[in-house]
Amino acid sequence: MIHDATRKPTREGVIAALESLGDIPLPPTPLLPTEIRGVLVHVKCENLQPIGAFKIRGAWWRLNNLEGDHAVAVSSGNHAQGVAFAAKQLGLKATIVMPRDAPRVKLDNTRALGAEVVLYRRPGEDRDAVAAKIIEEQGGTLVHAFGDPWVMEGQGTAGLEAAHQLGREPSRIITCCGGGGLAVGLSLACPSAAINVVEPEGWDMVGQALARGELVHASDNPPKTICDALQPTVTKQLNLDLLAGRAEPGVTVTDEEVRNAQRWAYANLRMVVEPGGAAALAAALAGKAPIDKDTVIMITGGNADPARFAETIAG
Amino acid sequence: MIHDATRKPTREGVIAALESLGDIPLPPTPLLPTEIRGVLVHVKCENLQPIGAFKIRGAWWRLNNLEGDHAVAVSSGNHAQGVAFAAKQLGLKATIVMPRDAPRVKLDNTRALGAEVVLYRRPGEDRDAVAAKIIEEQGGTLVHAFGDPWVMEGQGTAGLEAAHQLGREPSRIITCCGGGGLAVGLSLACPSAAINVVEPEGWDMVGQALARGELVHASDNPPKTICDALQPTVTKQLNLDLLAGRAEPGVTVTDEEVRNAQRWAYANLRMVVEPGGAAALAAALAGKAPIDKDTVIMITGGNADPARFAETIAG
Repeated sequence: MIHDATRKPTREGVIAALESLGDIPLPPTPLLPTEIRGVLVHVKCENLQPIGAFKIRGAWWRLNNLEGDHAVAVSSGNHAQGVAFAAKQLGLKATIVMPRDAPRVKLDNTRALGAEVVLYRRPGEDRDAVAAKIIEEQGGTLVHAFGDPWVMEGQGTAGLEAAHQLGREPSRIITCCGGGGLAVGLSLACPSAAINVVEPEGWDMVGQALARGELVHASDNPPKTICDALQPTVTKQLNLDLLAGRAEPGVTVTDEEVRNAQRWAYANLRMVVEPGGAAALAAALAGKAPIDKDTVIMITGGNADPARFAETIAG
Repeated sequence: MIHDATRKPTREGVIAALESLGDIPLPPTPLLPTEIRGVLVHVKCENLQPIGAFKIRGAWWRLNNLEGDHAVAVSSGNHAQGVAFAAKQLGLKATIVMPRDAPRVKLDNTRALGAEVVLYRRPGEDRDAVAAKIIEEQGGTLVHAFGDPWVMEGQGTAGLEAAHQLGREPSRIITCCGGGGLAVGLSLACPSAAINVVEPEGWDMVGQALARGELVHASDNPPKTICDALQPTVTKQLNLDLLAGRAEPGVTVTDEEVRNAQRWAYANLRMVVEPGGAAALAAALAGKAPIDKDTVIMITGGNADPARFAETIAG
């Protein structure tokens, strides 16, 4: 099936996606109150999803609207698990193209959910080409991790849930950002909320695109980051169009700020947060993102490599 | 004030306690569905409380019914934080007698909440005598960690919450057990649920008391346990009377079973659980406690020493 490039994600789509989550059933993730820099904020705990990340939302909604019975995805690990989980529930086949250096825990979990995993080398090999070849040979539909309109709508259900739990629309949502699928979904779900996207230093392809008004590609020699889930080489035009004039200027965080946030979440929230999942929290703790009265901070994933997590919290 | 030894905790008291928690406000902790040994169970996440443990419930209800303005408590750490938190909210003074070998994180958190901490040596010094001396010199009311009727009622609110969240009374509640205050509260909150108390090997003062029908004291040379929160030297007659004929035979778990449960919660629930808080989960995972259709497993605390937790998950 050819990807429908003309479909635009909508708030109505987000509402329909939330209804469809009731079929799994996938209960709302907790929205926990906590204090940051003297202000009560609300932390949306997507790391407590069954697959340990929000990606289950978009994957579920996309696969519910799939033509054919084979979903092909490209992912560093959390989208992989989301697609694998949804495919298993719906009795579909899933093939996931993942980087060789993805955290072992994400590779293992994806395989445990019954998906076929095809590895590629990062950087160097073109993961999209690998996926295209699979589709050419086997048939199937590409479920893009952030550029697919159903995926965007699905991710937005986290924002609707947070608004229901809060009893009103958040004034501000601070969110980790890879390619910008979640950010688009949240902006649709909560049209009056300020949206802050937070990316790792050197991997701010959405922040830079917002600043320049055009797509920006990662450099050939990008810096290392511990945020394995937040390394898109470029966002998509659809994401940029929907976030332009809607999101605040992008924010970047350092590895050390992210580790601080992981330690803070360990001690104060008693939760396991993976590096990429802690980026928004890192920005809030470091004072890089403003905090309003009804601010929601997205904690997006908890699939942290045990050895590295142990180093972080003991260090 | 003399401890009111004649007051009996009741289900009505548990219901009143739950209403009073609305004053803080203390939102319900998540009840997360997860699969154990092929059965869907429900995990009550008391480690996600603001103080990282269920103890806030009983302390809040007790201090709301305190005569005078000075709460004195004896605690290895979580009850300490509960009493300190409640005292701070209510503008009362709190003095907590804690063992010198309590986890640093619990000592620090208790002090950070504004309580005065008085240390004693464990084993050897009589902590109850230390508390009695404080009350004799300064006045105040002893808030017993598990033998106080208001504390029992307060802890029971976790059971009422779980029943509301589940939509029906749990068929079974598997709970970690120190002195048995939580177990009594849960049995009052959910009168038709089977109650399984889980204790560390060699520290099953409740399980042994249930088996013998009389109070049993810890030996002079008790075995070491990593469950720092589950080391009562003896339960109270009131707890035994209320649990006798009500709780199932006690279950004990080893340190290694507890560490396995901590690792399992890390990988599958993305949560930080302290050793004592993981005892019920350990029993369920090890097949030592039965699992019914509507089983609730209490995860009671998440205040884990970072260095030890790092060792556990990396090991």
